Amino acid sequence: MIIVLKPNITRKEEKAVLAEIKKLGYKPHIMRGVERTVIGAIGDERTHQNLETLMTWPQVEKVMPVQKRYKLVSREGHQGNSIIEVRGNVIGGKRFQVMAGPCSVESETQLLTTAEAVKKSGATILRGGAFKPRTSPYEFQGLGAKGLKLLAKARRETGLAIITELLSEDHAEMVAEYTDIIQIGARNAQNFQLLIAAAKTGKPVLLKRGLSMKIEEWLLAGEYVLAHGNPNLLFCERGIRTFETYTRNTLDLSTIPIIKQESHFPIVVDPSQGSGRADLVIAMCKGAVAMGADALLVEVHPNPAEAWSDGAQQVTLEGFARLMEELKPVVAAAGPEY
Amino acid sequence: MIIVLKPNITRKEEKAVLAEIKKLGYKPHIMRGVERTVIGAIGDERTHQNLETLMTWPQVEKVMPVQKRYKLVSREGHQGNSIIEVRGNVIGGKRFQVMAGPCSVESETQLLTTAEAVKKSGATILRGGAFKPRTSPYEFQGLGAKGLKLLAKARRETGLAIITELLSEDHAEMVAEYTDIIQIGARNAQNFQLLIAAAKTGKPVLLKRGLSMKIEEWLLAGEYVLAHGNPNLLFCERGIRTFETYTRNTLDLSTIPIIKQESHFPIVVDPSQGSGRADLVIAMCKGAVAMGADALLVEVHPNPAEAWSDGAQQVTLEGFARLMEELKPVVAAAGPEY
Amino acid sequence: MIIVLKPNITRKEEKAVLAEIKKLGYKPHIMRGVERTVIGAIGDERTHQNLETLMTWPQVEKVMPVQKRYKLVSREGHQGNSIIEVRGNVIGGKRFQVMAGPCSVESETQLLTTAEAVKKSGATILRGGAFKPRTSPYEFQGLGAKGLKLLAKARRETGLAIITELLSEDHAEMVAEYTDIIQIGARNAQNFQLLIAAAKTGKPVLLKRGLSMKIEEWLLAGEYVLAHGNPNLLFCERGIRTFETYTRNTLDLSTIPIIKQESHFPIVVDPSQGSGRADLVIAMCKGAVAMGADALLVEVHPNPAEAWSDGAQQVTLEGFARLMEELKPVVAAAGPEY
Amino acid sequence: MIIVLKPNITRKEEKAVLAEIKKLGYKPHIMRGVERTVIGAIGDERTHQNLETLMTWPQVEKVMPVQKRYKLVSREGHQGNSIIEVRGNVIGGKRFQVMAGPCSVESETQLLTTAEAVKKSGATILRGGAFKPRTSPYEFQGLGAKGLKLLAKARRETGLAIITELLSEDHAEMVAEYTDIIQIGARNAQNFQLLIAAAKTGKPVLLKRGLSMKIEEWLLAGEYVLAHGNPNLLFCERGIRTFETYTRNTLDLSTIPIIKQESHFPIVVDPSQGSGRADLVIAMCKGAVAMGADALLVEVHPNPAEAWSDGAQQVTLEGFARLMEELKPVVAAAGPEY
Repeated sequence: MIIVLKPNITRKEEKAVLAEIKKLGYKPHIMRGVERTVIGAIGDERTHQNLETLMTWPQVEKVMPVQKRYKLVSREGHQGNSIIEVRGNVIGGKRFQVMAGPCSVESETQLLTTAEAVKKSGATILRGGAFKPRTSPYEFQGLGAKGLKLLAKARRETGLAIITELLSEDHAEMVAEYTDIIQIGARNAQNFQLLIAAAKTGKPVLLKRGLSMKIEEWLLAGEYVLAHGNPNLLFCERGIRTFETYTRNTLDLSTIPIIKQESHFPIVVDPSQGSGRADLVIAMCKGAVAMGADALLVEVHPNPAEAWSDGAQQVTLEGFARLMEELKPVVAAAGPEY
Repeated sequence: MIIVLKPNITRKEEKAVLAEIKKLGYKPHIMRGVERTVIGAIGDERTHQNLETLMTWPQVEKVMPVQKRYKLVSREGHQGNSIIEVRGNVIGGKRFQVMAGPCSVESETQLLTTAEAVKKSGATILRGGAFKPRTSPYEFQGLGAKGLKLLAKARRETGLAIITELLSEDHAEMVAEYTDIIQIGARNAQNFQLLIAAAKTGKPVLLKRGLSMKIEEWLLAGEYVLAHGNPNLLFCERGIRTFETYTRNTLDLSTIPIIKQESHFPIVVDPSQGSGRADLVIAMCKGAVAMGADALLVEVHPNPAEAWSDGAQQVTLEGFARLMEELKPVVAAAGPEY
Repeated sequence: MIIVLKPNITRKEEKAVLAEIKKLGYKPHIMRGVERTVIGAIGDERTHQNLETLMTWPQVEKVMPVQKRYKLVSREGHQGNSIIEVRGNVIGGKRFQVMAGPCSVESETQLLTTAEAVKKSGATILRGGAFKPRTSPYEFQGLGAKGLKLLAKARRETGLAIITELLSEDHAEMVAEYTDIIQIGARNAQNFQLLIAAAKTGKPVLLKRGLSMKIEEWLLAGEYVLAHGNPNLLFCERGIRTFETYTRNTLDLSTIPIIKQESHFPIVVDPSQGSGRADLVIAMCKGAVAMGADALLVEVHPNPAEAWSDGAQQVTLEGFARLMEELKPVVAAAGPEY
Repeated sequence: MIIVLKPNITRKEEKAVLAEIKKLGYKPHIMRGVERTVIGAIGDERTHQNLETLMTWPQVEKVMPVQKRYKLVSREGHQGNSIIEVRGNVIGGKRFQVMAGPCSVESETQLLTTAEAVKKSGATILRGGAFKPRTSPYEFQGLGAKGLKLLAKARRETGLAIITELLSEDHAEMVAEYTDIIQIGARNAQNFQLLIAAAKTGKPVLLKRGLSMKIEEWLLAGEYVLAHGNPNLLFCERGIRTFETYTRNTLDLSTIPIIKQESHFPIVVDPSQGSGRADLVIAMCKGAVAMGADALLVEVHPNPAEAWSDGAQQVTLEGFARLMEELKPVVAAAGPEY
């Protein structure tokens, strides 16, 4: 920790800061600069109290942490890439993967039609929401257990692996029984109890970035999964909330190189939530692939205009086939790692 | 719903939109403007499908909802103010209320010292976190059940009512047993399962605004509490996340008149989370009171520099006494409603 | 400057950083911590090159400045409050001031009617835009020189001081001839050439906060005015751009105590731009006054529904009279400094 | 315009709205919905007063514009792509273009070395700031006229076209004399007087997106250039300001397909400002190219650690050569339009 003192304080006030730093377990180290005195507090910031509390003292101007707060998700001390395997499909390896399917599971026909179509176009993992977090209590909340069973049926019939969202700690076991990857949605990205419940199932956890989550907070949320014994983590960029209203969210594609730099886990991109507009999905996918994303998560629906949720961002079956076709040269260009 | 069509589309394309609107249960009404044709879709937007799905059609330019999406929290059709009573203290009535106490319950001494001090200064409700949502898994996670018991003890000894945060659906019953108000934190503001679990306890629910929650989304999250049978709701503004880094959050005091305009439930302001800096708390409180807040939620700690969580934003016992003294003329000026 | 090195770098890489720091004029000071080596670079950060450039070196993890970048606007080394006097009205002193008037000057009748009404209600300074920055080139751009003359006439007839916006360097002299305070609008808050031109007129400069301006940047923009020889500066909070759409901007009232803490210049609050809704203006004014604002800048129009610009945020003459009446007890409560 | 009335208003209040709509030149058209009455106001929204002023009336709930506010920049009514030609290089055509060079022109050696290197790597346009907008008045403000002359010399010696920033209306003629493209920086994106001055030179104008500029506002700022007689416009995405602090700005690559959808002018991407970190530039460039950007604007410096401005985001000459090499397959994959 670096503690910057205010100018013009007395030696007594300075001594009090030094004494407190020692009391809290750090070794203080003074540097006198041109306008400010700076104290380096040497000690492990992860096992000692955060000295930002010193900000309440009138003689302290600011406190700046030096260490990174995450450890298990960090690339430091873990040079290779961690890969996640689901039903024979490797995410984070040489092959690029696509997860696709409807926002919500609505019916057997809707789900199976979509599953077959996305498989045919090249997807290897089927997405579909059985439990849906909806802004209003009056909106469709998902088919629940029935939806999970339909997903299992689609898996049996197509061989696709399954990803579906976990909304409630109480459903963790049930959802884990049916799915191959547990999705934690943006609104629950700092619902730490849910993260712990998901971690404990042992299933791979795909952690969406929260709507206003800083990258450091996202990595630390991932750290919860690791710290609770589950080494199968996927980060998923799905757009952040900004002032812009043309798109529903602002997809922050810079997170692709950043997550690869800071962590050893794969990065997945969700262009559907990320833009909220089906007409932007193809372009966003191309960008994500060119920048090195390990996988895409795309919403696909046989008839978006009549979808029970988020229709505006779902592409049609034909649209998805075209998307996969158009992506091919970009995947090829992105190089040997695919 | 208002559907704006793109210019230069064919009559056939227009007809298809009209047919789909009818199919989805609305009655279409065409208006031909100077550059655009606009369709009013008449029908209840809360019971029919959201027509924003039509955005996926190439001939549709935009879809604009007309109705408000919230109902039970809305002031429309509910003219008077709803008041919340806890242990004889009325929030939302003529008397201004102050909730105060430490960020985390750390020990009996810490809690009881604080409780007695804030009571003496005029607070009527004691806050204190037993279960703490922390950004990092390596930070103090709260004393849990032991913390709840200490809160109950403080209530017995001081007569103060208690507010504490609920983090997990599984704790809802236990927390409800010990607390008078259940707090839902900013990170869980759209954790709908938790909102439902809190609602079902029947205890008043204080719903903090999420870090990047639009006012409409906040009202709809409140609607979840109401729709699950609990009529005791408090909104709590605690700052939103913006680009500014001088403060931890940007306290949006405009929500005080806005919530009063849109809803019949009380609005509480949390200046501690709202600024993240103890040195700004007094000014923020004065502003909140002058603008008509029904209550304040202030973090107070006997020794902020050694607090186990969020020390930088907690005021000392003396600081809180001074704050309550300085607030008096502002409360008086705010007029008859106090 | 504090330079944090990456872990596991060689001594040679470390030496290269030390050598570069010396070359750039700083004296390096090494601290070896638990996980990171930190270098304090001692030297004046305002007269030497910013070491953030070292971020391009692979062995450097981060660079953190220690000193404040602003000097003349800073309260450090300037303990008292700077006051601005315009035509006998003191801003930043014991008396609270109100600037009011229409968004745009539209006609003699409109302006004089408003001027007389706001004077009667207690305003001492008349606002009115002659040159208007409009989002679209097809919107009303202001009456220009004719508007300035009407403002001068209103001043002669009422004795009110005048504030009006400067849009172009080329108009600086002309605008200065007619106005008592030069307003720099939010969109031009980092138009440094305009700030310099305004500074050179010698007239007091009211500097609105930019839509996405951090407080440090705002203070530094003020520093431009000071550094170009003009000691008459007013900061004006007018709301920042956030994700919220209920209000046009999010008025950040925390800037009132912050500017008072960081600077010795007055802080003015504009609740009209700050909310974009006339129905919120009274509450915002009350909050601003209670928190210690030195003055308000309020948009008032005889007939907002027919205003040529920004009608939605202008209050009527009667509304303004009521506002000033309702503010009285809050001004009184805000204490001796009014 | 669509005007939504509040529920429960009287017929008299409704009539008053209708009368005002007529008075302001629109033809009102009533639709009675389930909960709300909606009025369509038929008339050209660009030539009549914006009815948002009606928001100040208590019986009006909201006002929603229907038409697009921009016209000349709009793809509507202009199906083909507008191309910009500078010294034989076509931007917006089939060939992908790269503009590269230092943030600031610092010396003849620095500029010429860079110019030759970027030319060799494939850039066709040389960037370099002669007038620099700097957050602090104590930072290097550019070499001014001397910098322009060095750019002209670099052009003579290399044949590269030149792009440089215009900061002041008073410099418009001088800058136009030396440059091939006039850059308007993010901080001046709504400095409409500067846009008009730039437009009048007749030189192509590259308009950077402002830090918190909505896409509609950006298009309207471009409309200023067109409306003042200059048909040579380039939009440049350079990142927006968000809550994230890992990067200096959040590069919003979704603007590539959006600008292409809404406008007929080319879109350029600046990954250097867009991330503020040299280590992210390559990935951002790949994404931009794959998504269809017409050109890139990249900061390149022979020795970023000693750059006089923004060193952290400038790549070295070798870094730029590698970047151009790595881009080749992505450019090829992006298809026939390159």
